Amino acid sequence: MKPNYSNLKKDFIAALKIISHEGLSDAFAHLSARVDDGNKMVFMPRKSPALVKAKELFVVDFEKLVPQSAVHQAIYRAREDVGSVIHFHSPAVILLSVVGHTVQPMHNYSAIFHEGVPVFEGTGQVESPERAADIARLLGPAKAVILRGHGAVVVGRSIREACILALYMEESARLQVEAMKLGTPKFVSRHEAERIAKRTFKPTSTERAWEHFKAKCNA
Amino acid sequence: MKPNYSNLKKDFIAALKIISHEGLSDAFAHLSARVDDGNKMVFMPRKSPALVKAKELFVVDFEKLVPQSAVHQAIYRAREDVGSVIHFHSPAVILLSVVGHTVQPMHNYSAIFHEGVPVFEGTGQVESPERAADIARLLGPAKAVILRGHGAVVVGRSIREACILALYMEESARLQVEAMKLGTPKFVSRHEAERIAKRTFKPTSTERAWEHFKAKCNA
Amino acid sequence: MKPNYSNLKKDFIAALKIISHEGLSDAFAHLSARVDDGNKMVFMPRKSPALVKAKELFVVDFEKLVPQSAVHQAIYRAREDVGSVIHFHSPAVILLSVVGHTVQPMHNYSAIFHEGVPVFEGTGQVESPERAADIARLLGPAKAVILRGHGAVVVGRSIREACILALYMEESARLQVEAMKLGTPKFVSRHEAERIAKRTFKPTSTERAWEHFKAKCNA
Amino acid sequence: MKPNYSNLKKDFIAALKIISHEGLSDAFAHLSARVDDGNKMVFMPRKSPALVKAKELFVVDFEKLVPQSAVHQAIYRAREDVGSVIHFHSPAVILLSVVGHTVQPMHNYSAIFHEGVPVFEGTGQVESPERAADIARLLGPAKAVILRGHGAVVVGRSIREACILALYMEESARLQVEAMKLGTPKFVSRHEAERIAKRTFKPTSTERAWEHFKAKCNA
Repeated sequence: MKPNYSNLKKDFIAALKIISHEGLSDAFAHLSARVDDGNKMVFMPRKSPALVKAKELFVVDFEKLVPQSAVHQAIYRAREDVGSVIHFHSPAVILLSVVGHTVQPMHNYSAIFHEGVPVFEGTGQVESPERAADIARLLGPAKAVILRGHGAVVVGRSIREACILALYMEESARLQVEAMKLGTPKFVSRHEAERIAKRTFKPTSTERAWEHFKAKCNA
Repeated sequence: MKPNYSNLKKDFIAALKIISHEGLSDAFAHLSARVDDGNKMVFMPRKSPALVKAKELFVVDFEKLVPQSAVHQAIYRAREDVGSVIHFHSPAVILLSVVGHTVQPMHNYSAIFHEGVPVFEGTGQVESPERAADIARLLGPAKAVILRGHGAVVVGRSIREACILALYMEESARLQVEAMKLGTPKFVSRHEAERIAKRTFKPTSTERAWEHFKAKCNA
Repeated sequence: MKPNYSNLKKDFIAALKIISHEGLSDAFAHLSARVDDGNKMVFMPRKSPALVKAKELFVVDFEKLVPQSAVHQAIYRAREDVGSVIHFHSPAVILLSVVGHTVQPMHNYSAIFHEGVPVFEGTGQVESPERAADIARLLGPAKAVILRGHGAVVVGRSIREACILALYMEESARLQVEAMKLGTPKFVSRHEAERIAKRTFKPTSTERAWEHFKAKCNA
Repeated sequence: MKPNYSNLKKDFIAALKIISHEGLSDAFAHLSARVDDGNKMVFMPRKSPALVKAKELFVVDFEKLVPQSAVHQAIYRAREDVGSVIHFHSPAVILLSVVGHTVQPMHNYSAIFHEGVPVFEGTGQVESPERAADIARLLGPAKAVILRGHGAVVVGRSIREACILALYMEESARLQVEAMKLGTPKFVSRHEAERIAKRTFKPTSTERAWEHFKAKCNA
């Protein structure tokens, strides 16, 4: 008998609604979550994240390419700790990428990305498994990678964590572009960022933020 | 027996609602769609696009001027491939125009405008068939033309395409003004933009975006 | 038998809702409309414009000071053509005023203010009938005056016109501050602005805009 | 028999809803109000302010540390005049803090902070009672203190006052960052600010603003 992943699918749909509601997604974001023995993922059909229904989700093997799946599969293969991958086109992240910058720690949320956020310079769509593998390699041990002129890929241990990190990422990018307009932002060191992140990025904080943003969608 | 264009009129009203909902339109946008043997268009009365009803739409011959119709008719005459024309006053497009710039390719959506977006320097309303013909000439084979201090005219093969291109246009303008504030944006070449557009601007993508934005209006 | 001004009161409440809905008003805007033989005005109690009800409106003689009334009365005395006065604290107008600028014609709506928009340099509240008279004198024959670090006063021939002009004023200020961030805006001459305004600012346009913004409040 | 603080709890929940609705709070703001003989406070559980219910509020002694309570208790001990403390992470306040600035008087609302707004340079969470005491000391006799890269702490004589001051603080920060982008803002002197504040910051104004923002949440 197959598992039906009913709780996971609820989180999946909630995460799609949250990123849509918070302005991170146009019609083209996509999300996945690792399942089974770790060699498969729950994935979504080729439609707007705001419109996907739980019954439309499906399980796909890492060896089988389906539309939009390449970057998800490449990252799960490269990173055992990753349980969920999200790709989205958010305004401030795209903006940072087209002026040659990336998110750097300067406040409590940007400090969470203390490993750094690499930028993939290739333009256009992900296009091929080879390019997807390049992106996964560039991601390395970080929480996110930016695709120049395109968007971001963010990873988490769970759907909830990937979703909340995506929100922190866009908020951090927004703060940084505004700070750059005003002069030289006071960035914090990588070491200091790591210290801040230990207090700010905890499972209980992720849960608190998740409940907050989920409630906003239904308000 | 005359056709009643019922599906076309549904798209027409939906497009007006989308541009209103997405902040592209004040009370003065107008839309048209070519019909019949190609020498007539479905047009709207002189009122806010958010308030127009399907039963108020009417068919007008290209030879007959009615309020607001001149620029639509001039473009249909000049461009056989155009099935729909939209004129609107959106904030970032107007902003670019009053500082002497136009939309240039720098990300996946602005790349769709790889033919360039000419700027009509005459100020004020379109005013006359002669000025409308000038605007159509300036448009040339492009997807859009900007009217300085006034707004934009965007064309598509269908109402859906014209509507989605209008959204991409405003988003591209918004990204560009923000990038200009931060320094020298990393534009992509016309050739690279054309390559990106081949993957990003496909009928299936337009449909996906259309369903996304239509659903947002009803949420 | 006294007139009850029922249509005027409907427009009064609608105008308050519109400026609240469009982000022009915090809790402290106030509006008036000239009535009777021209020596009285309909006025509102000292509460948030979003919360005022038709039955709370009252008629006050120009000679009798009530809270917030001084600047309204001073303008009606100085300008026979004015039928309605609105005072509000909108973000972009305040912003322009604290950096030493005012609205200048650069697009179809800012051109409507071709007479210029003077800035009153005194800070704080209007405070006294004497200061109100100074503000009315500074307004002169213009459509609006800006109070530095405080807000604006806009006048119209009717409530509808004053309301729509207030919206154009804030939109013009917003466009101008954005243009100033990007470099030197391409302003148009006073003469050209007057020509544009003749086509853009007509009673039929005001009606079209009024219906548009009124419908948005109820959507 | 214990008091149940039912009116105070209504204001508490309303204030949390207001700061959420006005964009001042993510999932992590917290509020308190002094009660009893002045050595206890009503406090909230560790969850999103938008989701807290009246029945979840509790009274805590100043000597007893509970999650998030340290900065509240330190301020009540240091400032007898303070009846309510609010801590929040709002965008413009955080932005000012990471570019090395603080709120300065330049318009009617920023003038209310004429005592100055000190900036606490330590990064990360409040973390300990010692750090909380440092923050209370830095606050001194002012209405607010900014925590660099983190947010703000605002105090008032009542919940309503603290809530409205928090809104004025974020609005003032937003105006100031925009003014800084445009050049040298025209600040007003401390003396002039104090004069303006006497007219702008009165109990009746606070009540008017409170009713305005409370109604917006329910609209």
